[in-house]
Amino acid sequence: MAKIIVDVHLKAELLDPQGRAISGALERLGLTEVVDVRQGKQFVIEINGEVTPEILQKLQELSGNLLSNPVIENYELKVL
Amino acid sequence: MAKIIVDVHLKAELLDPQGRAISGALERLGLTEVVDVRQGKQFVIEINGEVTPEILQKLQELSGNLLSNPVIENYELKVL
Repeated sequence: MAKIIVDVHLKAELLDPQGRAISGALERLGLTEVVDVRQGKQFVIEINGEVTPEILQKLQELSGNLLSNPVIENYELKVL
Repeated sequence: MAKIIVDVHLKAELLDPQGRAISGALERLGLTEVVDVRQGKQFVIEINGEVTPEILQKLQELSGNLLSNPVIENYELKVL
């Protein structure tokens, strides 16, 4: 059993209104040192057996199409 | 400038319908080795200056109250 983690975030050049709201809330609640917050999604995928190069390639493909929107988002894939 | 990452996920004993839907989609799209998918949130927080113990404690507090719902979610905090 292998675990793969895919983190999906809005591209850096795009405004993240949710992150902005959280940043404001953290500041109001006393964390004045906050400069910026970005909110993203995290997928934890469990795979039966080993992560072969074929599975990894398929996962890269699906991370870029299904799990993220390539127009506005970047993804990062980690095998644990 | 320090970066803190907070990962928020539904507790393991709770059903994650979004994760279930993604798991089904991945399978239909050819990744038949998928056993389970859990979807969570990831917050990337930038802090001005160093992460002092006081800031870290405040962050732990806010991660448990503001960034996650302690009734149904767990969080994990990492300082980069």
